[in-house]
Amino acid sequence: MTTRLGRHFIQIPGPTNVPDRVLRAIAAPTIDHRGPEFSAIMQDVLPGLQRLFKSAGPVVIFAGSGSGAWEAALVNTLSPGDKVLMAETGHFSNLWERMARKFALDVEYLPGDWRGGVNPARVEARLAEDKAHAIKAVAIVHNETSTGVTSDVAAIRRALDQTRHPALFLVDAISSLGSIDLRTAEWGIDVVVGGSQKGLMLPPGLGFNAVSEKALAAAKKAKLSRSFWDWEPILEANKAWSFPFTPNINLIFGLKEAVAMFEEVGLAAVFARHARHGEAVRRAVRAWDLELQAANPAEYSASVTAIRVPEGVNADSTRAVILEDFDMSLGAGLGKLAGKVFRIGHLGALNDLMIAGTLAGVEMGLLRAQVPHQRGGVLTALDFLARDSGRTAKKAAE
Amino acid sequence: MTTRLGRHFIQIPGPTNVPDRVLRAIAAPTIDHRGPEFSAIMQDVLPGLQRLFKSAGPVVIFAGSGSGAWEAALVNTLSPGDKVLMAETGHFSNLWERMARKFALDVEYLPGDWRGGVNPARVEARLAEDKAHAIKAVAIVHNETSTGVTSDVAAIRRALDQTRHPALFLVDAISSLGSIDLRTAEWGIDVVVGGSQKGLMLPPGLGFNAVSEKALAAAKKAKLSRSFWDWEPILEANKAWSFPFTPNINLIFGLKEAVAMFEEVGLAAVFARHARHGEAVRRAVRAWDLELQAANPAEYSASVTAIRVPEGVNADSTRAVILEDFDMSLGAGLGKLAGKVFRIGHLGALNDLMIAGTLAGVEMGLLRAQVPHQRGGVLTALDFLARDSGRTAKKAAE
Amino acid sequence: MTTRLGRHFIQIPGPTNVPDRVLRAIAAPTIDHRGPEFSAIMQDVLPGLQRLFKSAGPVVIFAGSGSGAWEAALVNTLSPGDKVLMAETGHFSNLWERMARKFALDVEYLPGDWRGGVNPARVEARLAEDKAHAIKAVAIVHNETSTGVTSDVAAIRRALDQTRHPALFLVDAISSLGSIDLRTAEWGIDVVVGGSQKGLMLPPGLGFNAVSEKALAAAKKAKLSRSFWDWEPILEANKAWSFPFTPNINLIFGLKEAVAMFEEVGLAAVFARHARHGEAVRRAVRAWDLELQAANPAEYSASVTAIRVPEGVNADSTRAVILEDFDMSLGAGLGKLAGKVFRIGHLGALNDLMIAGTLAGVEMGLLRAQVPHQRGGVLTALDFLARDSGRTAKKAAE
Amino acid sequence: MTTRLGRHFIQIPGPTNVPDRVLRAIAAPTIDHRGPEFSAIMQDVLPGLQRLFKSAGPVVIFAGSGSGAWEAALVNTLSPGDKVLMAETGHFSNLWERMARKFALDVEYLPGDWRGGVNPARVEARLAEDKAHAIKAVAIVHNETSTGVTSDVAAIRRALDQTRHPALFLVDAISSLGSIDLRTAEWGIDVVVGGSQKGLMLPPGLGFNAVSEKALAAAKKAKLSRSFWDWEPILEANKAWSFPFTPNINLIFGLKEAVAMFEEVGLAAVFARHARHGEAVRRAVRAWDLELQAANPAEYSASVTAIRVPEGVNADSTRAVILEDFDMSLGAGLGKLAGKVFRIGHLGALNDLMIAGTLAGVEMGLLRAQVPHQRGGVLTALDFLARDSGRTAKKAAE
Repeated sequence: MTTRLGRHFIQIPGPTNVPDRVLRAIAAPTIDHRGPEFSAIMQDVLPGLQRLFKSAGPVVIFAGSGSGAWEAALVNTLSPGDKVLMAETGHFSNLWERMARKFALDVEYLPGDWRGGVNPARVEARLAEDKAHAIKAVAIVHNETSTGVTSDVAAIRRALDQTRHPALFLVDAISSLGSIDLRTAEWGIDVVVGGSQKGLMLPPGLGFNAVSEKALAAAKKAKLSRSFWDWEPILEANKAWSFPFTPNINLIFGLKEAVAMFEEVGLAAVFARHARHGEAVRRAVRAWDLELQAANPAEYSASVTAIRVPEGVNADSTRAVILEDFDMSLGAGLGKLAGKVFRIGHLGALNDLMIAGTLAGVEMGLLRAQVPHQRGGVLTALDFLARDSGRTAKKAAE
Repeated sequence: MTTRLGRHFIQIPGPTNVPDRVLRAIAAPTIDHRGPEFSAIMQDVLPGLQRLFKSAGPVVIFAGSGSGAWEAALVNTLSPGDKVLMAETGHFSNLWERMARKFALDVEYLPGDWRGGVNPARVEARLAEDKAHAIKAVAIVHNETSTGVTSDVAAIRRALDQTRHPALFLVDAISSLGSIDLRTAEWGIDVVVGGSQKGLMLPPGLGFNAVSEKALAAAKKAKLSRSFWDWEPILEANKAWSFPFTPNINLIFGLKEAVAMFEEVGLAAVFARHARHGEAVRRAVRAWDLELQAANPAEYSASVTAIRVPEGVNADSTRAVILEDFDMSLGAGLGKLAGKVFRIGHLGALNDLMIAGTLAGVEMGLLRAQVPHQRGGVLTALDFLARDSGRTAKKAAE
Repeated sequence: MTTRLGRHFIQIPGPTNVPDRVLRAIAAPTIDHRGPEFSAIMQDVLPGLQRLFKSAGPVVIFAGSGSGAWEAALVNTLSPGDKVLMAETGHFSNLWERMARKFALDVEYLPGDWRGGVNPARVEARLAEDKAHAIKAVAIVHNETSTGVTSDVAAIRRALDQTRHPALFLVDAISSLGSIDLRTAEWGIDVVVGGSQKGLMLPPGLGFNAVSEKALAAAKKAKLSRSFWDWEPILEANKAWSFPFTPNINLIFGLKEAVAMFEEVGLAAVFARHARHGEAVRRAVRAWDLELQAANPAEYSASVTAIRVPEGVNADSTRAVILEDFDMSLGAGLGKLAGKVFRIGHLGALNDLMIAGTLAGVEMGLLRAQVPHQRGGVLTALDFLARDSGRTAKKAAE
Repeated sequence: MTTRLGRHFIQIPGPTNVPDRVLRAIAAPTIDHRGPEFSAIMQDVLPGLQRLFKSAGPVVIFAGSGSGAWEAALVNTLSPGDKVLMAETGHFSNLWERMARKFALDVEYLPGDWRGGVNPARVEARLAEDKAHAIKAVAIVHNETSTGVTSDVAAIRRALDQTRHPALFLVDAISSLGSIDLRTAEWGIDVVVGGSQKGLMLPPGLGFNAVSEKALAAAKKAKLSRSFWDWEPILEANKAWSFPFTPNINLIFGLKEAVAMFEEVGLAAVFARHARHGEAVRRAVRAWDLELQAANPAEYSASVTAIRVPEGVNADSTRAVILEDFDMSLGAGLGKLAGKVFRIGHLGALNDLMIAGTLAGVEMGLLRAQVPHQRGGVLTALDFLARDSGRTAKKAAE
């Protein structure tokens, strides 16, 4: 492998740039997960996670990934044959749908064109029809990482409320958590699915479920087989700030640090920063005269932007040029978007100059890969960032 | 938390002492798991793991723990209602048995007294009876971490061979892998279950399955629901040195380093060192006039020793004194051994002086906690270690 | 201190961005500097340093800084009252001159206007006059960090040769080493003065002297008092790959890594990259319609650029805005340039996107601090970098 | 190099075991030494160092080593030809004497046999004779690292006071600082010489001078040439929490952490721990029937013990066996003690089990190297440590 000097730009939508402070925390010597030092860490981390998830219920930490946390959300709350209402938003909603079918759930999947979010009206209509309450859960993706589209979770909650439908509400917040506001308690979300390697600024390896009382009650009756993903023994052990199995100790060292950083900065400031960076990226895209995958401005994602390349261009070749010439990793088009879009992750521990370097890498890559475009994306983004400085965002957040 | 100066002695039977070299590898900036740099690492790691497991088949890496890897072994190979023959060796065989029941398997559990290993004759007898081949799998624990007893895996293999029984052979090697010889291919093991935080010298967070062709064939027909633990998409992606989901990237940086260290040192030398340290510890125990939990010398574990405290002594109080006064973590008695034994882990990255310090901590702890014993355990161990130096072991291994 | 998320841009002309690989090497446990493991490192490092300095003679490593290495160059080669010819290039030549006077040397200081390098013709004229060879040493700064001006060392060597003058030739290469070609042996330099925290990609804490045979001979007669900086005991101990005192062990772990990285990449490629980045920065400066401190294109520095702010602007206020709003450190104007220039370091472990982010930070800072300028510096730099990709530079270097 | 598994025991009397927490601090990205973040660190570190040195005057930090700090103590306070009274305690007092001569000081060296400390009565007698106050400084070694002998600094102070002698009082505390009580202000020490790599639990690379007002006044008149070691510009810059040259930034990150650890634990507890470990080591030595180099119990060092090997044994061969077979580094005999003693460092971040492991390594090494001795040193030490637990020391310190 060629030695590259200078820092690699990892601008995929996860894993993200892990702060050095977190990386160094992870490198601490592993300790006894049954000893007092680890308990003390858990006493910091568990309440901190609840605040981060804005959750009234507990947050379960898994040694696993986001997909594992999805599996946990399903197997803890549902029984074979249960009907689940899902909505197609892109590659990741597809994966979730496929997973649900593997567990013999009866998925009803509202189709989508991968350019929009979940349509609350359609969800409401479907729930209204379901007088018998056959639908046991509504499961959606908050921020569809494959398209850069954020769905209106509060509106889906309203759909449930309007129809007085008792279905559980499961939300994949893998690429929104710590980047885009998610109000677990306020929005009556029963299970939030999260992972460590996105807005949480950690390496991959941890999955999360924030769990409501209603979900806990459902778990008591749910008949899907479960062992590793079972909330109950974990929550029981967590009462004594412990785990029933060996947890991912070193990543939890990092989690403690990440949680502390969120508290130091404040969630409002974090969300404002993500929104600002998302806007800067989209302004660059428009200046380049390229098309966003997301069709509806109200649904633009603050954490990831998927950009369509012109007809006849292979997005993956463009990415390869950018990786080779400018040492930057961008996200590929996934599923049916393969080759048609590239994705810029603008979530996690980023600042204005990292965004500027990222956009510069894209602009130079478009030039070198001879992708038809207009110049000036970087300039436009800088104008925006210089005018609307972080200072303003910082004040707003105070 | 009190600041302690000097290095904490973590002598539980896992997590173990992670070498600094591995910890520093883990602290490298997270990279794109779909990029060429990560592929290159996988090209090192996957064949290296096969050599470490002495496996002809592939080794699947999970972001999870050892318990997750157990779950994977079951759900990939079996169908609801399948009969599984297990054998009680201690707390961990119990956990496995309970897990199997959660997945609606029909477990036949050969009882044990927690002082011995799996009895090959009984297994053979049971298999011989099973003319109809109702038993679909034999699942045992190689090294029972709760008792310090190692079962004779080769003998169980012979039981299967003698009876020409087609059952799958599943082996939990969580606390033997990288410490005690395990010949996956030679002994016809169909699934080996491993974890990162024991002999592999890594933090917790990775689970492993070494998988035989027969197991792969069984997976095609197995009907237990699975998604996260499903071997198939992982093995498919591994062909391109990739993963279907976000792997535990930073721990895999450490895994690369650990695998390299095993290759540098040589497995034979590693096993010889563990055997030698196990012997040193047991000589100390005998000198203290304490009793080993393991009843049969042929089954003494090279990676962990469980020591019975005299009647009237609470092993956990002794451990607490040792933690408080000498900053050393020892393993607790688990399940029905709670309070009755303490366990010394002597696996992973250890050397003679760490073992000496460990035994010194135990001997001083016995004194301070006023546990009835004879003096001289450390002295006896030093005599043994000084006489049978690592040099001899090293030569034997060359 | 406010927690800042995202990576700080440290674009002062040293310390520079230390690669993670080097930082992790530095975090290894300290070892015995008199043991075999340390000797093995020295066997790597010392010859590697000679190649890096292109030196035929040994390279002495000091636990100290660049200023310490200056002091060493003087006290090892000269006696009180010795005449030394120096040339004013800026703040750092001034510091060297002042230091020489502190050691009772008779400094003759050719005046300069801080916008140009050393004038070889004037040096030659002065040497030609000195028929009696009263001048014992010519001491110049290769790359004047305070002004961004690189002097023509080869031309000064020719001046010495033309006049057949026997003076020692001392060169401060603190901000050129590992960034701009310096041919110690070919150019007959007797003492090169270097430090760790610039092009060498290390934290501060090491000073270097590359020493010629002629310098070693001079050291035998030099009468300035010396102990810590004395080459002789160090060179003697270095023969056994050791040190006479406790060396800066952990920084030497990093040095080993840095030396390895230079060898992996190749010096020619490193110099080409620095030249390319220097050109990109200067193109941005011109586009902004700002003035370079360096007056002569032939002397533009490849490692640092000093930029004059318009009359009425305080460069330090501009830097403060950039630090506060964009989390980037730039170099201050030093000595008589205080407040009048700011400096961009473009040396060490940098790549195109880091340079792009840096220039974006300057351009946005000029806007926010309302410094009169033209827009478009970043765009101009990107045009240049995209056209003249690193790929070309890489090929040239092969 | 052979890969060794398990942690190397570094039990030389410096560098010592650097805590992981300090190593990880050192691995943080290098920052601008002229920026606000670095200033904030200095605001922590400088007052913390004063408390650590128990100094009323400032503490100067050098990028250098202990020998550099010696040089600084001399060149800042003295003029060529000044008479300095020194006392031979061993190899390090010899080095200091030699250094003083290199700077043209008129050293009067009270001879010693390397088994005792400085004799206060002889110092007092000599000062009493010096009616003319020709002696400008008394310079002694607090803890002679080559012999394991601690001199009575307070008694020397009394000698100065009794004779009303105005000489400056310079004390080398390199291997006592942070291990053995040193009361800079109370004992009227004018310059304390320290280094980072001993009791301070840091890697080598920093030197220290704690400086009294009297020393600062002397510095104004001192005529020895100085530049790098000059206190004045450093103290001037330190007023603004800055440095006149690039400091050893990453080691200062570690220094901040080490200073914090001392404050968390408390100096009294640190000194009690060192005293206790020194006693444990000496009890082992006596049980082995080996001889201490230190002749006088009142002068036994709490940080290092030098042990004489029997006639006919080469101490270096014994050390080589211990390094090869037990992966432990011990200190060599220095100067005229080469081959005759080996030294155990018991300073810095150590705990009882590390001491136990260390003594076990020595005892096994004596066996394997066939050095005539009695068995039982470890046992004796354990008896002592178990009886006089750290708990008692901890309470005493509260």
